[in-house]
Amino acid sequence: MNLLSRVFTYELPTEIAFGVHAVNELPKWIDSLKGSKVFIVSDPGVAQAGILDKVTSPLAEAHITFHTFTEVEREPDVKTIEIATAEAKAFGADLVIGVGGGSAQDAAKAVAVMVNNEGKITQYAGLNHIPNPGLPIICIPTTAGTGSEVTIWTVISEKDYHRKFGIGGKYLAPTLALCDPALTLSLPGPMTAATGMDALTHALESFVNKATQPISEALSRESMRLIAKSLRKAVVQGDNLEARYDMLLASTIAAMAFNPTRLGLAHALCMPLGGKFKVPHGTANAILLPQVMQFNFVGNLEKFKEIAEIFGENTAGLPLREAAELSVKAIKKLNQDIGIPAGLREYGVTEEDLDYIAKEGMESGNVWVNPRKPTLEDLKEIVRQSI
Amino acid sequence: MNLLSRVFTYELPTEIAFGVHAVNELPKWIDSLKGSKVFIVSDPGVAQAGILDKVTSPLAEAHITFHTFTEVEREPDVKTIEIATAEAKAFGADLVIGVGGGSAQDAAKAVAVMVNNEGKITQYAGLNHIPNPGLPIICIPTTAGTGSEVTIWTVISEKDYHRKFGIGGKYLAPTLALCDPALTLSLPGPMTAATGMDALTHALESFVNKATQPISEALSRESMRLIAKSLRKAVVQGDNLEARYDMLLASTIAAMAFNPTRLGLAHALCMPLGGKFKVPHGTANAILLPQVMQFNFVGNLEKFKEIAEIFGENTAGLPLREAAELSVKAIKKLNQDIGIPAGLREYGVTEEDLDYIAKEGMESGNVWVNPRKPTLEDLKEIVRQSI
Ligand SMILES: [Fe+2]
Ligand SMILES: [Fe+2]
Repeated sequence: MNLLSRVFTYELPTEIAFGVHAVNELPKWIDSLKGSKVFIVSDPGVAQAGILDKVTSPLAEAHITFHTFTEVEREPDVKTIEIATAEAKAFGADLVIGVGGGSAQDAAKAVAVMVNNEGKITQYAGLNHIPNPGLPIICIPTTAGTGSEVTIWTVISEKDYHRKFGIGGKYLAPTLALCDPALTLSLPGPMTAATGMDALTHALESFVNKATQPISEALSRESMRLIAKSLRKAVVQGDNLEARYDMLLASTIAAMAFNPTRLGLAHALCMPLGGKFKVPHGTANAILLPQVMQFNFVGNLEKFKEIAEIFGENTAGLPLREAAELSVKAIKKLNQDIGIPAGLREYGVTEEDLDYIAKEGMESGNVWVNPRKPTLEDLKEIVRQSI
Repeated sequence: MNLLSRVFTYELPTEIAFGVHAVNELPKWIDSLKGSKVFIVSDPGVAQAGILDKVTSPLAEAHITFHTFTEVEREPDVKTIEIATAEAKAFGADLVIGVGGGSAQDAAKAVAVMVNNEGKITQYAGLNHIPNPGLPIICIPTTAGTGSEVTIWTVISEKDYHRKFGIGGKYLAPTLALCDPALTLSLPGPMTAATGMDALTHALESFVNKATQPISEALSRESMRLIAKSLRKAVVQGDNLEARYDMLLASTIAAMAFNPTRLGLAHALCMPLGGKFKVPHGTANAILLPQVMQFNFVGNLEKFKEIAEIFGENTAGLPLREAAELSVKAIKKLNQDIGIPAGLREYGVTEEDLDYIAKEGMESGNVWVNPRKPTLEDLKEIVRQSI
């Protein structure tokens, strides 16, 4: 038990309010955070789907002054953050709300801190480099996967330079995660599948990695249990509120788990796949995960056996190694059932790209916590098997 | 799934640092909290056992100015809080550290807030009635059971009036829980058993009660799993560091679970048993728990079945009701194995006291969250069976 030889820490800087129609309590929360000029950051899809209205109409009814910025693109660029920050300042915002998937929430978090900090947010890449606290932040997820509503991280691109940055720290933690499963009911099946697999990859990579610790493990287990129970149903019965409830909860709990532990090789390789090949984050994770597990399981047989069992595999009487390896099969079946694309070739990835992807992946901080230390060749092989 | 009809909240105002010899990092934490005059609250037992030295020697080495108050008695009286608060003020304290079991930690939390608030702490009984924030608080548990290091509650007595008060709120949440399993190695078997059963009662009562929610449930499961694995070993092999690690972790995690949910009938009935009959809190819980479970299990068969399984009962092929009832047997066996006193008669409780105990118990806020609504006669019967 190598835990005996280290001190782990756990903290949750974000308060969570979770429930069907929780969004109707938004005015109460704004009041308790002394917000009077509310700057709402969202994206065009959320606005067009009418989801943003579900957030703003309680505000209008409560006569709360707000301003909406709905121009966040996928993988938001630093320029978008600058434009939105200028708008927030001109409006005199004293509270920022992010409504959407990971991109809109990450943008909202970035805007909230940049109102009180100089320069570009990308110059603060890494952990705890932002000098001043920002405005209070409420995050309202409309997909079940990113977990951005409880993480201390935001991911911002500099598309001119084909770069993506992770910026993290206490000031980027939302003050409140307001999680309303009803807002996710209209999410299409393929998006439900991809974002759900992102949540699973968070829970699973944290669970098996070298930095995990007992509080995160407990949360990972619960998240995986909920996903095993409800992801298929959420994908094929989009209007099943209980399945949507479970999946949003799984996503939030997974992020509570991985906040202090980081992740693993799937998330390391996601970055170049998202940046250069535009593979959606959740889809990239879903495609990579079985191969990453196949590579990793010898690094922690007990944990992978537990994953197999959580996903319903029958491990009775099996040797530990075989039981552990069943976890890979379980996740492959899940991917098939929910219609995850068969491989990265659908996004134009070829053998010739392996070197670039593996080299970029190797730069990630997620590599050194992975349960098995990879070589560059190992990463190439994982991606090769995922094409 | 009645969760679909309500919004639950979860927050953790306390940061946790957990590990063997974590206490050696205390100077670093004091520094990060900008503490320069540290007021340490503890009790005579902790001081005599040499445990307090393990906390103060890193401070002395780091040349940190501190003052120790070691006069906290069991179930601390409001007068003790007043004396300690006056000492803290005279010393000019800017940070308070509690070192000990529940009593010392509760006293430290009370002192930290009363430095900045007028009157007696008992006048603020209930939730969030304290007007001003107090000093930063570091709690260092030396028993594995109370969980006070992460709760927003402190329990203070007015012995002149035979009263006990629960005072709760954000300002009473420790800033840091510094949990070092090595500090619990010298705890005698009977105290290990009683405090361990307190932790179990926290995890279990929260798990089955009507106010529980998924984040608490996940934490309760993990806590019970650790207790099932390691309480017996911690009692009979006091120097087993891994068992001590598991038990301290179980205790902290159980408190993370019950903070937002409250508890149940065992904790309701503990108050009069502790106040009038001086039954130690953990012992009272341990003795009551099987009878409380026998009364409650029909209120949530699935959850009690899960408890039975966590504690190693074989439920295969059993009807749900029978599987659920096995949980009672499992806890009775645990009590026997770790030497919990057979009944309350050892503390002078007789049939004649049932009325008083039940009436006092009925006043507790823990009654209305209990999974089965009790009458006064029900409470009397639970205590009668526990004599
Ligand atoms: Fe992710
Ligand atoms: Fe207790």
